Amino acid sequence: MIELIAFDADDTLWQNERLYTATQKKLARLLAPYADEQGVHKALYATEMDNLELYGYGIKAFTLSMMETAIDLSQNRIGSREIRQIIDWARDMLWAEVQLLPHAAETLAQLSASYPLMLMTKGDLLDQRRKLERSGLGGYFDHVEIVSHKGASIYRDLLERHGLEPPQFVMVGDSLRSDVLPVVEIGGHAVHIPPESSWAHERVPAHQVPDGYHQLEHLGQLPGLIEQLG
Amino acid sequence: MIELIAFDADDTLWQNERLYTATQKKLARLLAPYADEQGVHKALYATEMDNLELYGYGIKAFTLSMMETAIDLSQNRIGSREIRQIIDWARDMLWAEVQLLPHAAETLAQLSASYPLMLMTKGDLLDQRRKLERSGLGGYFDHVEIVSHKGASIYRDLLERHGLEPPQFVMVGDSLRSDVLPVVEIGGHAVHIPPESSWAHERVPAHQVPDGYHQLEHLGQLPGLIEQLG
Repeated sequence: MIELIAFDADDTLWQNERLYTATQKKLARLLAPYADEQGVHKALYATEMDNLELYGYGIKAFTLSMMETAIDLSQNRIGSREIRQIIDWARDMLWAEVQLLPHAAETLAQLSASYPLMLMTKGDLLDQRRKLERSGLGGYFDHVEIVSHKGASIYRDLLERHGLEPPQFVMVGDSLRSDVLPVVEIGGHAVHIPPESSWAHERVPAHQVPDGYHQLEHLGQLPGLIEQLG
Repeated sequence: MIELIAFDADDTLWQNERLYTATQKKLARLLAPYADEQGVHKALYATEMDNLELYGYGIKAFTLSMMETAIDLSQNRIGSREIRQIIDWARDMLWAEVQLLPHAAETLAQLSASYPLMLMTKGDLLDQRRKLERSGLGGYFDHVEIVSHKGASIYRDLLERHGLEPPQFVMVGDSLRSDVLPVVEIGGHAVHIPPESSWAHERVPAHQVPDGYHQLEHLGQLPGLIEQLG
């Protein structure tokens, strides 16, 4: 019997990666005098990975990593106008309209009638709260958890706090690394909905992909699966 | 009967404001060619307030505001070396040692034997988690809440989730604005421990200071007060 269904937010309920990809393209144009597009992407990703432990996830972290990349690749030749430009991109990202993914609203409406729903996302606290508010989906969730990362121990704590056993829990998300692997590890139900595009960090090598999770093409297929699960 | 005691973190359990003040002084030195110390502080505070809704609290937000202030005050004359310098200060702040305030550890040890304790702080999710881990105080807390801001509705939700009435709840903190006013408003017990110095944003005008809260000089006096409360 399913007692709690949790949803990832970015690229599960609403578009997110697009925003980062579009901004990366702008950075590549800004840094075109110093490196080609591939070189900019590679340097930015390396900087993001170096900074992940210190800065965490989210737009502010991404912005600081863009600045470091710009300074490094240009060998200190960029100036305050370029830095201001990068800050303006961050502001645009933070204010960007929330674009729901297909079937998000009606699936949550349908499932919330029968199950407690949780939003469970990592990223920046304020930014995720703001997106949830602006998404119009806030009313469907009984619980909102914004966490600094998603590992097996985080999911275990969550279930303990809610007094649930893993088979009573379903996690739905676009990331094998964050939404699927740790949930399968603790014995919960994981539902993977592959995104149109994903951040390299969220991908996992093929040999690490576990058995025993469910894959759907879109959120509209979720209520049928939940019915089967019990 | 008290059923839950919640503690603010920054400048309640450990030093925090000092770190910001020290970094502001560095920024004032960096910008000395463009404005005097008072002018830098004033411009930075204005930028922080403009950005608060968008960036929220924490070191990354502070860093972006420092950059904007530096670019504005210098009228685009600062360059990538100065920006790199500001990023390096942010890294130093994020890695800074956690310095506990007097009586923090023994007070938590003593109270946690009899009461469920909660850490309730705003700020950056990852940074607050990291400080809690490094503080050595993590084991005393039954619950950790990191919130995007602290208003009456946040406290009301919290009590509802824990099935508590306001008189069963004690909030302990250094900020009248965040830890005292909203808790008095909902009918809970608020304990104010004034900090050695505070960020202007956390202060409240004298006429807004409510009656009906407790003031202590340091955390060591808390167990005695809790005993009186019930």
